[in-house]
Amino acid sequence: MSTDQLGTGYAGETPRDSTQSKARILDAATAEFAAYGLAGARVDRIAARAGANKQLIYRYFGSKEALFDSALAANIDRLLDEIPFNALDLPGYAVTMFDFAHAHRELVRLVRWHTLERPGVLWALPNAAESTRLKVAALRQAQEAGVVDGALPAEHMLELLLSLIHSAAESHAIGDSPAAVAARRRAVAHGAQRLTTPSQA
Amino acid sequence: MSTDQLGTGYAGETPRDSTQSKARILDAATAEFAAYGLAGARVDRIAARAGANKQLIYRYFGSKEALFDSALAANIDRLLDEIPFNALDLPGYAVTMFDFAHAHRELVRLVRWHTLERPGVLWALPNAAESTRLKVAALRQAQEAGVVDGALPAEHMLELLLSLIHSAAESHAIGDSPAAVAARRRAVAHGAQRLTTPSQA
Repeated sequence: MSTDQLGTGYAGETPRDSTQSKARILDAATAEFAAYGLAGARVDRIAARAGANKQLIYRYFGSKEALFDSALAANIDRLLDEIPFNALDLPGYAVTMFDFAHAHRELVRLVRWHTLERPGVLWALPNAAESTRLKVAALRQAQEAGVVDGALPAEHMLELLLSLIHSAAESHAIGDSPAAVAARRRAVAHGAQRLTTPSQA
Repeated sequence: MSTDQLGTGYAGETPRDSTQSKARILDAATAEFAAYGLAGARVDRIAARAGANKQLIYRYFGSKEALFDSALAANIDRLLDEIPFNALDLPGYAVTMFDFAHAHRELVRLVRWHTLERPGVLWALPNAAESTRLKVAALRQAQEAGVVDGALPAEHMLELLLSLIHSAAESHAIGDSPAAVAARRRAVAHGAQRLTTPSQA
């Protein structure tokens, strides 16, 4: 089934029914894919959890792969909506992202599964690509203004910064006690500051 | 089957046969688990690739989970054998790790699957735990000598450093062209230097 048919709905379905069903399916898909990944997920379980039938899921989303991508996109959109990028306070941005990731472990897991099972899909999502473009432009401007270290191209500076945040958000090496999480949060802020502050040399 | 029975072999098997069979099975398991993860892997395919039978695999390794852990351990042991940690040249260490990870993408994937499907197992491997202990001690000594920045506890400094390396080693955001890999390699070295150089302030 082609994704062009998404949202055509079933006989008697109102636009509001359709929006609500899709949102419920995406929530259920997020939980299932975060737990089991793309290959391990069962569309049966997603249907049961969403109170929808499998046929409706395929009609709305097309395939298990497309449903995975849609769940990833919905979660990334929420992140992008909630967390503004601030090139003038990168330690603050890093800590806000860390807190979001810590509160939304399912997003961290979805992103990890995606690197293994749908590599590259995230960066091709229109909202993610546009957001990355804007972040790189803001970073470059901050570098030109001398507020952010200019030793690296802006896209690499952004990648290093996001690396710190993403790894810290799901770390089993040091542990998950509240004290360990708080220490990791401080480490991320400190790392972001050291990475991005203009060198005195 | 208990792992205590590993290596008891079959009638007529010499110790050398057993060592070679286990090595072939671990190589095949590495390829299969790197491609499909723990849940997605098929012991049938591992047996076919290794030229062994499934019963022998279960006799040697006990279960699919235990085989995954053994494949992870074998790959981590190779990494630890080949790459000495040098607290006095952390950018150099970071670049050597980056190159190793780039040349051994299957290890990067195994580690990623492990965070999703066998979380925590890596850090409990005796060799990995001992190596981490030694790295933290060496970093702490370098901090005390004023060679490495002392603003963070040594275990957090190590975690930040490894975050940079691991994320850079499998990045789909910026691309995989030789020029992109070379730029990422420079970014990792630079990031390691900025993170770890004592602050002038």
